[in-house]
Amino acid sequence: MEETLTGNILVAQSGGPSAVINASLAGVITEALNHECIEEIYGGLNGVEGILNEQLIDLAAESQQTVRGLCTTPASALGTCRYKLKSERDFARIIDVFKAHNIRYFFYIGGNDSQDTANKIAECAKSSGYELRVIGIPKTIDNDLPVTDHCPGYGSVVKYLCTSIRELALDHESMGNHDLVSIVEVMGRNAGWIAAGTSVAKRRNQPEDAPHIILLPEVAFNADYFLSQVQECLKKNKFCLVVASEGIIDANGNYVAAADAHDSFGHSQLGGVGEYLQQLVAKNLPGVRARSCKLGHAQRCAEQCASQTDSNEAFMCGQMAVRAAVNGESGKMVALIRGDTEKYTCETTLTELSSVANGVKHFPENWISDDKISVSYQFNKYVMPLLQGEVQVPYENGLPAYVRLSKERIQPKLAPYAAE
Amino acid sequence: MEETLTGNILVAQSGGPSAVINASLAGVITEALNHECIEEIYGGLNGVEGILNEQLIDLAAESQQTVRGLCTTPASALGTCRYKLKSERDFARIIDVFKAHNIRYFFYIGGNDSQDTANKIAECAKSSGYELRVIGIPKTIDNDLPVTDHCPGYGSVVKYLCTSIRELALDHESMGNHDLVSIVEVMGRNAGWIAAGTSVAKRRNQPEDAPHIILLPEVAFNADYFLSQVQECLKKNKFCLVVASEGIIDANGNYVAAADAHDSFGHSQLGGVGEYLQQLVAKNLPGVRARSCKLGHAQRCAEQCASQTDSNEAFMCGQMAVRAAVNGESGKMVALIRGDTEKYTCETTLTELSSVANGVKHFPENWISDDKISVSYQFNKYVMPLLQGEVQVPYENGLPAYVRLSKERIQPKLAPYAAE
Repeated sequence: MEETLTGNILVAQSGGPSAVINASLAGVITEALNHECIEEIYGGLNGVEGILNEQLIDLAAESQQTVRGLCTTPASALGTCRYKLKSERDFARIIDVFKAHNIRYFFYIGGNDSQDTANKIAECAKSSGYELRVIGIPKTIDNDLPVTDHCPGYGSVVKYLCTSIRELALDHESMGNHDLVSIVEVMGRNAGWIAAGTSVAKRRNQPEDAPHIILLPEVAFNADYFLSQVQECLKKNKFCLVVASEGIIDANGNYVAAADAHDSFGHSQLGGVGEYLQQLVAKNLPGVRARSCKLGHAQRCAEQCASQTDSNEAFMCGQMAVRAAVNGESGKMVALIRGDTEKYTCETTLTELSSVANGVKHFPENWISDDKISVSYQFNKYVMPLLQGEVQVPYENGLPAYVRLSKERIQPKLAPYAAE
Repeated sequence: MEETLTGNILVAQSGGPSAVINASLAGVITEALNHECIEEIYGGLNGVEGILNEQLIDLAAESQQTVRGLCTTPASALGTCRYKLKSERDFARIIDVFKAHNIRYFFYIGGNDSQDTANKIAECAKSSGYELRVIGIPKTIDNDLPVTDHCPGYGSVVKYLCTSIRELALDHESMGNHDLVSIVEVMGRNAGWIAAGTSVAKRRNQPEDAPHIILLPEVAFNADYFLSQVQECLKKNKFCLVVASEGIIDANGNYVAAADAHDSFGHSQLGGVGEYLQQLVAKNLPGVRARSCKLGHAQRCAEQCASQTDSNEAFMCGQMAVRAAVNGESGKMVALIRGDTEKYTCETTLTELSSVANGVKHFPENWISDDKISVSYQFNKYVMPLLQGEVQVPYENGLPAYVRLSKERIQPKLAPYAAE
């Protein structure tokens, strides 16, 4: 055990929100209260962007009810940002803010970029001789962080999508005897983790269940092959549900949807993959009805469909980050490790921030089936435990009662910062 | 009380599915078991289309568990159709099928078209001297059936959309200090009931809450006015959530999305209203981020977010239909009436099928606010009670366990029917 470091903590959130990123925040706050060396619990608004501007709030002033409510509230309660610290001046300013408020513990909840930022802040503090402990807390629905077995946020988006796909499938199956193709566009621009996850919407041993075709960004899209697979599926089922990652690319590495919009209409923004595939089917398979839906950002913040396992693990990551820092660790990210047992267990470990920063965990090639439109049983075994249990969202007057932080501001101590 | 009519019942579903149409089916089956005059309980597959083809199943053979499960299973368990009986020959065939299977009670669960079909079948039976009791059971997420205070299916779609909008709003609000416009395209091609319903996603007394702009098909769309309203909202909130009915029209009565696609690209199918508005904002408001999502058919079958009040009322409609028929009624539809009390109560009554068939209940003009982009408190009072309570979907292995009928077929007794 390291020497006790007494001071204040600062926690912030970064990158795209998720259904469970606030559970990690709750984990940090709850655990921080257990340690005498921690004096004040501050939150930074809108990630490093807010910290640069000294936008800090007093998290200890939030009610117990609100902190508990964070575990069932989606999105980033502290606000988030996609700002990248640009210069030495930026980093020096961060350290100045930390010094001004005696921040000795910094926790950054986010994905690849955020872990990189946390790493750089840790290095900057060290090189300037300011004693600071920095721990990263993993979060990304994309599930593409290295080292960690999986990422908080991923299980919930998969649970939501699988639920919606089961419901859509029942809807479409009930629509009678007409050939119907339904496209569901899902997130995950560069990695197929999310699209692949929808494979478990199939009931066990029911190969005729939706989704029938999964288009991954790892597999070059071929329109002819796709249409032939759709036709084969329609022959068997009269109905074909296609899950398409928003980021599917053609053999030349161009995004499929953007490419088409460019070629035919001279602009690149119109339509997503769902619309594109819907048109492709409508034009090439006469008599077949085609539909698409784009759940958009609704999929990453669907608390009413979130996984309790995911939420618990997100909370645990927050807790363990604080424990690690209090124990003297710094420059690390909390990572999840899966037990080697038949029954799923999950614990945390620590990994160097530098080993995570800006790295990407690709979807394993050997989990993609030979037909290139489905995934292996090994993947299903990987993903199923992450969906278990249902977050119980409190309702009020018929609608989910999500909490908002009261955001009691900490008086700034520095002159305003002028960004470059 | 009429003379007892002994025989079999047939129940079928028609039109677009909903989250609670199966609860009405469960209501029919459950109530039918209480009456000795009812001998067999048959289901017709795919509405009148299946009945023409003598595709009947034995609903009494379904397990109790399955029938109970129908109350928490979305879409049409019997299958549905959009087929319109075309000729006297079609109607005569229906009566022949009824005679062959001694069907003396016919229940048709559906919207405007379906009630019209039920009405014609009732008339046809009467004119051919075949004793048959026909009761319609209302269902439509569009909420546009005349006479009935509201329609089973409507409360659940509104509850789902309001939940998703609250979640999207938290997501977008947390995305920092950039102007952001988010478009949510919702169903309801010809009436604004669904779009209007999303207004209650706002927390009480929080006018800054989403949705900020609601575009109803009843209000002619004006791009300039829309953009000015968006800008005004961004000034206040930095974030503007727009709910757009898929059926909004311009001053000439043309669908907004289809019109644009025609004019600019020479085809009418590409893109929905959401994509169109996203482009409109992106092109005309530089520096503003625009996003859209299209929940599509996911919104009408979202059982995991369904209203218990809605489900209970759907079940009650099925029950009351059977009671009415057993009591000698025919040629009627079950309608919901709201009690005159402060606390919401709901009972059923009967209305002539002819008063409902093909009629439409428009969204009341005086519930549209003067700004044309919001709705009145009177409407909120109307819709809130319909969202109360949460359907408890059973989960199995992390995903909703929806039931499927085993569909034990009844042996056909007639020669196959050749459609014209």
